[in-house]
Amino acid sequence: MIRTVAQYLDSLNDGREMWCMGEKVKDVRTHPTLSGIIRTAALDYVLPHHPEYRHLFVTRNAAGEDVNFLLTAPRTAEDLLRRRECFITAMRTGGGVLLHCMGADALAAFTVTANVMDKELGTEYGARVENYRQLLMRQDLGITGAITDVKGDRSLRPSQQKQHPDYYLRVVDRQKDGIVVRGAKVHISASPCANELLCSPCRTHGEADKDYALAFAVPCNAPGVKMLAVEPVSRTYGDEGRFDYPKTSATQPTECLIVFDDVFVPWERVFMCGEWQYSRTLAYAFASYHRLFGTCKMVGKLEAMTGAAALAAEYNGVEHADHIRKKLAWMAMITHMVFELGKAACLDPVTEFGHDVAMPNRMSINAAKFTFASNFHQMCQHMQDIAGGLCTTVPTYRDWQNPDIQPYIDKYLGAKAGVSTEDRLRVMRLIKDMTGNYWQIDTIHGEGSMAAQQMFLYGSADWDKLKAAARRAAHIDGWQQHPLYGQLLSSDMVDMPAVDASYGSVPETAK
Amino acid sequence: MIRTVAQYLDSLNDGREMWCMGEKVKDVRTHPTLSGIIRTAALDYVLPHHPEYRHLFVTRNAAGEDVNFLLTAPRTAEDLLRRRECFITAMRTGGGVLLHCMGADALAAFTVTANVMDKELGTEYGARVENYRQLLMRQDLGITGAITDVKGDRSLRPSQQKQHPDYYLRVVDRQKDGIVVRGAKVHISASPCANELLCSPCRTHGEADKDYALAFAVPCNAPGVKMLAVEPVSRTYGDEGRFDYPKTSATQPTECLIVFDDVFVPWERVFMCGEWQYSRTLAYAFASYHRLFGTCKMVGKLEAMTGAAALAAEYNGVEHADHIRKKLAWMAMITHMVFELGKAACLDPVTEFGHDVAMPNRMSINAAKFTFASNFHQMCQHMQDIAGGLCTTVPTYRDWQNPDIQPYIDKYLGAKAGVSTEDRLRVMRLIKDMTGNYWQIDTIHGEGSMAAQQMFLYGSADWDKLKAAARRAAHIDGWQQHPLYGQLLSSDMVDMPAVDASYGSVPETAK
Amino acid sequence: MIRTVAQYLDSLNDGREMWCMGEKVKDVRTHPTLSGIIRTAALDYVLPHHPEYRHLFVTRNAAGEDVNFLLTAPRTAEDLLRRRECFITAMRTGGGVLLHCMGADALAAFTVTANVMDKELGTEYGARVENYRQLLMRQDLGITGAITDVKGDRSLRPSQQKQHPDYYLRVVDRQKDGIVVRGAKVHISASPCANELLCSPCRTHGEADKDYALAFAVPCNAPGVKMLAVEPVSRTYGDEGRFDYPKTSATQPTECLIVFDDVFVPWERVFMCGEWQYSRTLAYAFASYHRLFGTCKMVGKLEAMTGAAALAAEYNGVEHADHIRKKLAWMAMITHMVFELGKAACLDPVTEFGHDVAMPNRMSINAAKFTFASNFHQMCQHMQDIAGGLCTTVPTYRDWQNPDIQPYIDKYLGAKAGVSTEDRLRVMRLIKDMTGNYWQIDTIHGEGSMAAQQMFLYGSADWDKLKAAARRAAHIDGWQQHPLYGQLLSSDMVDMPAVDASYGSVPETAK
Amino acid sequence: MIRTVAQYLDSLNDGREMWCMGEKVKDVRTHPTLSGIIRTAALDYVLPHHPEYRHLFVTRNAAGEDVNFLLTAPRTAEDLLRRRECFITAMRTGGGVLLHCMGADALAAFTVTANVMDKELGTEYGARVENYRQLLMRQDLGITGAITDVKGDRSLRPSQQKQHPDYYLRVVDRQKDGIVVRGAKVHISASPCANELLCSPCRTHGEADKDYALAFAVPCNAPGVKMLAVEPVSRTYGDEGRFDYPKTSATQPTECLIVFDDVFVPWERVFMCGEWQYSRTLAYAFASYHRLFGTCKMVGKLEAMTGAAALAAEYNGVEHADHIRKKLAWMAMITHMVFELGKAACLDPVTEFGHDVAMPNRMSINAAKFTFASNFHQMCQHMQDIAGGLCTTVPTYRDWQNPDIQPYIDKYLGAKAGVSTEDRLRVMRLIKDMTGNYWQIDTIHGEGSMAAQQMFLYGSADWDKLKAAARRAAHIDGWQQHPLYGQLLSSDMVDMPAVDASYGSVPETAK
Repeated sequence: MIRTVAQYLDSLNDGREMWCMGEKVKDVRTHPTLSGIIRTAALDYVLPHHPEYRHLFVTRNAAGEDVNFLLTAPRTAEDLLRRRECFITAMRTGGGVLLHCMGADALAAFTVTANVMDKELGTEYGARVENYRQLLMRQDLGITGAITDVKGDRSLRPSQQKQHPDYYLRVVDRQKDGIVVRGAKVHISASPCANELLCSPCRTHGEADKDYALAFAVPCNAPGVKMLAVEPVSRTYGDEGRFDYPKTSATQPTECLIVFDDVFVPWERVFMCGEWQYSRTLAYAFASYHRLFGTCKMVGKLEAMTGAAALAAEYNGVEHADHIRKKLAWMAMITHMVFELGKAACLDPVTEFGHDVAMPNRMSINAAKFTFASNFHQMCQHMQDIAGGLCTTVPTYRDWQNPDIQPYIDKYLGAKAGVSTEDRLRVMRLIKDMTGNYWQIDTIHGEGSMAAQQMFLYGSADWDKLKAAARRAAHIDGWQQHPLYGQLLSSDMVDMPAVDASYGSVPETAK
Repeated sequence: MIRTVAQYLDSLNDGREMWCMGEKVKDVRTHPTLSGIIRTAALDYVLPHHPEYRHLFVTRNAAGEDVNFLLTAPRTAEDLLRRRECFITAMRTGGGVLLHCMGADALAAFTVTANVMDKELGTEYGARVENYRQLLMRQDLGITGAITDVKGDRSLRPSQQKQHPDYYLRVVDRQKDGIVVRGAKVHISASPCANELLCSPCRTHGEADKDYALAFAVPCNAPGVKMLAVEPVSRTYGDEGRFDYPKTSATQPTECLIVFDDVFVPWERVFMCGEWQYSRTLAYAFASYHRLFGTCKMVGKLEAMTGAAALAAEYNGVEHADHIRKKLAWMAMITHMVFELGKAACLDPVTEFGHDVAMPNRMSINAAKFTFASNFHQMCQHMQDIAGGLCTTVPTYRDWQNPDIQPYIDKYLGAKAGVSTEDRLRVMRLIKDMTGNYWQIDTIHGEGSMAAQQMFLYGSADWDKLKAAARRAAHIDGWQQHPLYGQLLSSDMVDMPAVDASYGSVPETAK
Repeated sequence: MIRTVAQYLDSLNDGREMWCMGEKVKDVRTHPTLSGIIRTAALDYVLPHHPEYRHLFVTRNAAGEDVNFLLTAPRTAEDLLRRRECFITAMRTGGGVLLHCMGADALAAFTVTANVMDKELGTEYGARVENYRQLLMRQDLGITGAITDVKGDRSLRPSQQKQHPDYYLRVVDRQKDGIVVRGAKVHISASPCANELLCSPCRTHGEADKDYALAFAVPCNAPGVKMLAVEPVSRTYGDEGRFDYPKTSATQPTECLIVFDDVFVPWERVFMCGEWQYSRTLAYAFASYHRLFGTCKMVGKLEAMTGAAALAAEYNGVEHADHIRKKLAWMAMITHMVFELGKAACLDPVTEFGHDVAMPNRMSINAAKFTFASNFHQMCQHMQDIAGGLCTTVPTYRDWQNPDIQPYIDKYLGAKAGVSTEDRLRVMRLIKDMTGNYWQIDTIHGEGSMAAQQMFLYGSADWDKLKAAARRAAHIDGWQQHPLYGQLLSSDMVDMPAVDASYGSVPETAK
Repeated sequence: MIRTVAQYLDSLNDGREMWCMGEKVKDVRTHPTLSGIIRTAALDYVLPHHPEYRHLFVTRNAAGEDVNFLLTAPRTAEDLLRRRECFITAMRTGGGVLLHCMGADALAAFTVTANVMDKELGTEYGARVENYRQLLMRQDLGITGAITDVKGDRSLRPSQQKQHPDYYLRVVDRQKDGIVVRGAKVHISASPCANELLCSPCRTHGEADKDYALAFAVPCNAPGVKMLAVEPVSRTYGDEGRFDYPKTSATQPTECLIVFDDVFVPWERVFMCGEWQYSRTLAYAFASYHRLFGTCKMVGKLEAMTGAAALAAEYNGVEHADHIRKKLAWMAMITHMVFELGKAACLDPVTEFGHDVAMPNRMSINAAKFTFASNFHQMCQHMQDIAGGLCTTVPTYRDWQNPDIQPYIDKYLGAKAGVSTEDRLRVMRLIKDMTGNYWQIDTIHGEGSMAAQQMFLYGSADWDKLKAAARRAAHIDGWQQHPLYGQLLSSDMVDMPAVDASYGSVPETAK
């Protein structure tokens, strides 16, 4: 089914234990700052009903019912491209797939890993995942992925931690009907607006840590689940929030620290429990899918940032300066590259886990993520440089609304003729919001750190091919066996006349 | 005289027109967020009374009275080094010279420019500046420099602006006793806590814009002066502010948009009025002095940032990782370079405006500023990278103070054994505060944009010497006249035996 | 027709005036250093005969004759992809399209511009270009593009030059049968091995410079054409060249300074003469095509460089070090990005000059070029850093061949067990060759400087879309008209319950 | 004594076994390419005799004899500054201290280490070093340091190497009168022009590798010493070399691979033999001194490079373009920073090995080295970018000397009026020479790799101070004990009136 917005909103008033700024949240829909992200997340239930977007977000399941496309498993390059289109559309719209982003990626990764485990271990996880997927489709639930453990001392493995053994989520009891889990997940996006939490390991575990090799799903209101929302970017809402923090007042607080205080999970919702050898596959599959989402998220952000820098240049009257144009050109280029590399990752998918399981190309998707993560601070620097100091000292909504001082602000903070001062203030507020918030950190750590991409890139590059290219160039044997470089022709095949040794510029040379 | 803290605080309750977040401020000393910066600024009146720092901050004037050293004009390399020591000490302490920083630099620049004008034009500005300086010393007033005009359309000169002629501060009436000025200055640091505003042009003006070539001083409570404080980084104060925003709750809001709504200035407080040819000297002199302050400001900031990254690495248990160490080494290096280049700028001062006027070395001071401005975002990236995502999702004071959730935070956000969770939260809050605030923008635009430093560096480099070096290396005539490269010896002076042409590896060569 | 290698080689002995290192070249086929590039270029005539590559390089013309695919005009994305495949194959093979690269791009650009001129001016250039193309196909001639003028003082337009008016190639006489041209083209690749020179303006010309708006083709042995080859990277050849300079001994000298000393060109070979308004189109079309070639050229180079760094790491025993792996990962990523962005440029071609003229996508192709040009020096730095100092102090062929010292070299310059010293020397020679040659400069200036790409990127970015994204995010009117951003839904459509104002963390807010 | 040039040149004809390009060198003074570096090195014997430089290079020993200042041990900041002045003067002159550079640094390091060993072990190395130093002074010998071992597999320690145990120089026999050593040193600068080789470990050795903890000196003609010179940058000399390779024809080949084929060393020339615990001190001391030399070397190089870029911009007519000026400003800034950081390293020396042993400040000297090493490729890129493609395709001496083609070159490769074409060619040749030679690699690896500087910077930073700064800022206890940050005052000392809680913009806050 496809739920209505009203059905979705109602479902959030489910008795969940939610905290924000040290206060217990009575109803996420009416909390001053949390309600912003709820409103944004509700777009996930607006889009499938809209004639323009229905074809993108709605598909049919085997039973012929309408279901959300993002709840299906990608099997082809086309599926990945459509998933990407959904993500980009929703992120440009203003959020939207914020709700399903992590969850859809976790669900896809569950399927990949279940297939591998069933084949190699003879388990029946595949059927369980599929049953769970059908449940989600039938009830059209909002899902998120709870991946990152709190980790404790990062130099120690889960079972070696000194202060307590719960820094990574683990099974503490195996019962007849299900398991009991304890631990906490941190930075979990979309959790205030989700119905279901899909939990998965965030790293490779060894045998000693097999109790931490754990994947399952629980509803947000399951007993023992406690959600602590992050600080909102601003402690404002409504028109004030919209003016002062035009992007983030609609998107934060979304992350939660989620505590699992001995939570019971029935077996039919457990998708890994102890199979430590496959924690790597699960972490890798999630990372690959989620980096695709990351590139989609960034398309929307980078377009707004590049455009904001261009608007600021225009309003300030500096858009014709050569160095400003070079900075804008660079920003547009990075935006374009992230877009194209994300597309390339879909066009040439990984099929090593079966030809009916499509995952984003590793080189392209990690190159895309690394491109935006490593260049994001430079994007911010250029934007701040172009905007001028006003992008931090810009007046607020409360300043602007005060009739005693508005005339002075209006007069003195104008710039290019024909542009209203209010528009200039708004673009400065946008730049302040976009560069002074959590985006820099999210860009580095969201979807995995830069070191993680470097590891993937190193692990995924075709070193055999690259070394063969070098061997061939250096005349070092060994390239002849390579399927690409070993097949190439050679200029030795060209029959040349003998060299004329009479030229004076070249020494007499051994032949 | 050297005022007491109480005298200083009393002086701020002077009826000034101050606004913050759209509300009129009744008394800056008791405003929830403004009081933070007032407290910090008061250190300027604590330090001169303290036995440890008295030798640094207090000197004697000609009359043998104790006066604040920062109110004197630097005449030697030693004076510059002591000024730098005052600035660094106060910035490490937690602010302090926040109050005098802009003002002391503007005052020094007034003296330089007055000397040049008096010599070339026969004016008597030097005496006026000196009288004003004596007034400041006698009353020990807090001063700030009001430099940056609001500028309007940056592609147009002041008198060409299309919307109105007041985008740069200008004289609108010349009367018998003084002048009337109109316009606005923006991003003016330390203005809520100052007693006096020292106003100066922010750029070179041409003859058509001579009404904008204007320097003077007025008290903060002068009729027609309106001060609009910027948004504070956080809308909190007290213990909450101290925990959540440990640095900025003590330093923002400090900038104001200052409107001069037809303000009268008596002639004895006017230090330039129409001498457009000297606006360049004044802008340059201020920039040079203020970039020295900038490097001092950054020493304190960069030390705290580098240390915070090191603490976060330690607490997270990653301090032994090679790539973490390389990032920390780089941060320590940048910190060190800014420190040393600032010192070098004092050791080799500019004396082109007279040997009793010492200004920081142009190459060194602009290299120092450019080093921190161009690398600051990378500093932030490294710090955020090392700290992990927790530096944005870290709980707040209100979370931590709630006894229902503190135990969960305490348990799950711990890390290395032996480090309290609260300490880890505090370093994460510090990193969040330092990277998500106005510092990035201040680092670029404070003390002049990077383009301004590039212009100074290009204009100050010794191109004759550098080209002579290249000409000599390339055997292009013209280097022989250069005092350094023209004097150097040459290996042509060495009497060598004839070359043996029998070696096979070298072609027979024209000789 | 498709010529044999022997036919091709014979055709080069055509009496052309060629100089190298100050000596007149009797026969390019037997000159010690020039013969290296001739051998490489001959691959263009080997590949079409080889069963493995015939399908790629050979197509049929309208008359059903076999012709070289690179001599056809690209009309679709598929044509561009096949062209790219030809280029990449030949460049990996060891050169090859070195011969046709510039010429094929100039020929394609002639067609684009002729179409536009014929449509707008009623000229008949299209037919002339087509006739010339048929001639090339029938005779299977080797072609190159002579584009870059010597330029003189770059701050002056062609007709303003002070020393003489010939710094840009120009028409000096218009006769009944043809024109007489004078000037010089510089850095012209593949000219020693070409049969024909296709000349084109390298920049936009204004009306005053219409005599410089000139495109035509002449044979290399036309009277008045003088070709001065560049210095070879090494003055060696044969086995010595192959060991010491394994890449460049096969590819340099290829560039010539070509002087047109009053050369006559019959009208049927003239493709622009005075139509200054179209010099921009021609320069832009050539640049777009040639940057596609540039990305293909770099695929081969970057693969060999990345592989060489990996081999050096392996041989030196450092391949497991974390910082080495991060550098290798980065090199592989850049290589991958250039590959994918080149492909993306073909997949989404420019069709603004007609739907049967396909040109590479501007954003993608300029992003690809800028990526390798701006990062190439960093590629070199990483490679040199990984290889160690031996990549410059490595012994030569002559050292290695000397039996008195070979044993010492063999013993002491070995490294990892199992790797022969000779192999290690070879990879070091390769790295020395690749980083100490003309590649750095070629990478910057070949196919246009970085400033040229920045100009294209600035000019090609979809600023309307980007500004609409920012306006929408900042709530500034104007985005509503945009076809993409104006159509997106809004979260205002969501019907939310009223905010509960009882929470203590948020101030009472204007609504 | 101070030798004459003639005495010095004579001393080189000493029967040493020297090879170049696979040929045995009969006399280094007359070898076509080696003679270039000999001529340059002879400046070391010209300068002390010249009235302008005598005060710098000549000092008196205890016996009142004139001796070369560079052979004395630096004891104060002033000594380091004078040493720096000698190095910079000689490097700007065109080499000069090329000869003494490595040797003087090795000699200073011997003294430091001998002092430490004598104090801790009771050895008498100090006297031996001093006697050897007196010998050098009396005979005014040319010395170089032979430091870098060939290393083999870098992942293995010396005694673990698999192919043979001689990858690091080691003692193979301890006899009554002396020791026998075997191994090889690589990249040894100035060895063709030195009289003496001062050998030292290049890394820290452990106990198992104590036979490699070895320092001594031998004459270049000692039996068993074999010197294999590197490939010269160009295989030309005389006027051709001077035109085509204006810098490197005077400075390469200077590095040798030096084989020690069972060389006997008398005990009085042995300065470490088995004291593995002190190999670290020796390697560190040499590195510190030699990085000071490195900064001096780079001052000359960077000045010529920055000037060459400025000349090329002038000749090409682009010196007024904004982006060119920004690049030039950056190059001048880097040049200035290396200069100032080198000076700062002398002004604040390390004294941990005794107050009469002055070593360069670790933070400053490593920051200086890292600054030029990490930015050198960018310097090259800017220079090549500004110069244009002609800096690789520029004609050679042989082209220019040919009267048939010179007129064409003269006409077409001119540029700005008033600049001769020959001058333009010369600056292009200089840029080609400077960016296409071994400098990039030398800049990375000479005086230790960038990783070595990062290690030093990490090891030398004052983490206690930096962490104290962060703790104080974050209100984390522990800073109170720090001598600097623990002493600073606090704004808590300021007595402020109570906050007025009536403002609407701030929430009611816990106090």
